[in-house]
Amino acid sequence: MNISHIEHIGIAVSDLDEAIAYYRDQLGLKCYAIEEVADQKVKTAFFKVGDTKIELLESTDPEGPVGKFIEKKGPGVHHIAFAVDNVDESLSEAESNGVRLIDKQKRKGAEGLSIGFLHPKSTLGVLTEFCGEE
Amino acid sequence: MNISHIEHIGIAVSDLDEAIAYYRDQLGLKCYAIEEVADQKVKTAFFKVGDTKIELLESTDPEGPVGKFIEKKGPGVHHIAFAVDNVDESLSEAESNGVRLIDKQKRKGAEGLSIGFLHPKSTLGVLTEFCGEE
Repeated sequence: MNISHIEHIGIAVSDLDEAIAYYRDQLGLKCYAIEEVADQKVKTAFFKVGDTKIELLESTDPEGPVGKFIEKKGPGVHHIAFAVDNVDESLSEAESNGVRLIDKQKRKGAEGLSIGFLHPKSTLGVLTEFCGEE
Repeated sequence: MNISHIEHIGIAVSDLDEAIAYYRDQLGLKCYAIEEVADQKVKTAFFKVGDTKIELLESTDPEGPVGKFIEKKGPGVHHIAFAVDNVDESLSEAESNGVRLIDKQKRKGAEGLSIGFLHPKSTLGVLTEFCGEE
């Protein structure tokens, strides 16, 4: 697999409007997109910082993954996504390197990109995603 | 302030050797430096991923900040560092934008860089650092 950069950092927030205001008005970053991802039960806001995006995640359902995360741990960094050329191939290669997977095959994430999650039991406390065009 | 990119993501780990092996052998990333930062009571290992570094942090003292973090929350993302031109000026500007600070002035961090932390009460659950040459 070829990890080229950190595609995004997913940050769980309690209130998307409050979080957008913090990153925009207090840190001076620019929000370029807001999108609801029904499959993940989140509303997201995107900021570009160098070649990495900050993806703010507000849960739209307490039973969704981000809702459960916030209930257990509070707001904070939810996951890191590494940019890869090909998500399926990278998942297979990680598995052959001994990494457990959540997603055996890619699925669609925000911004129309392909995504796949590694299993947190394998990633030392950091929920980790592969993300790419293919 | 001018945040150009994410300088690094600090990840608290229980065992630095185990974590280096995961990022190197299972994800294929390259560890380019290992450094002890006595002031922070951590031993660190650095990986470059695009224009961002992953900084693995193993505590050298249970009473240090990373030791306390792991005891409370377990291993995982500890902080995000934004690259800025001038740390002191960026801290002042953040404060004037209403952000509480841990560090009113820059201090020395890993790799000889200047660093300063924002107060977690202001940053919505993400421990946040400014980091730069100056």
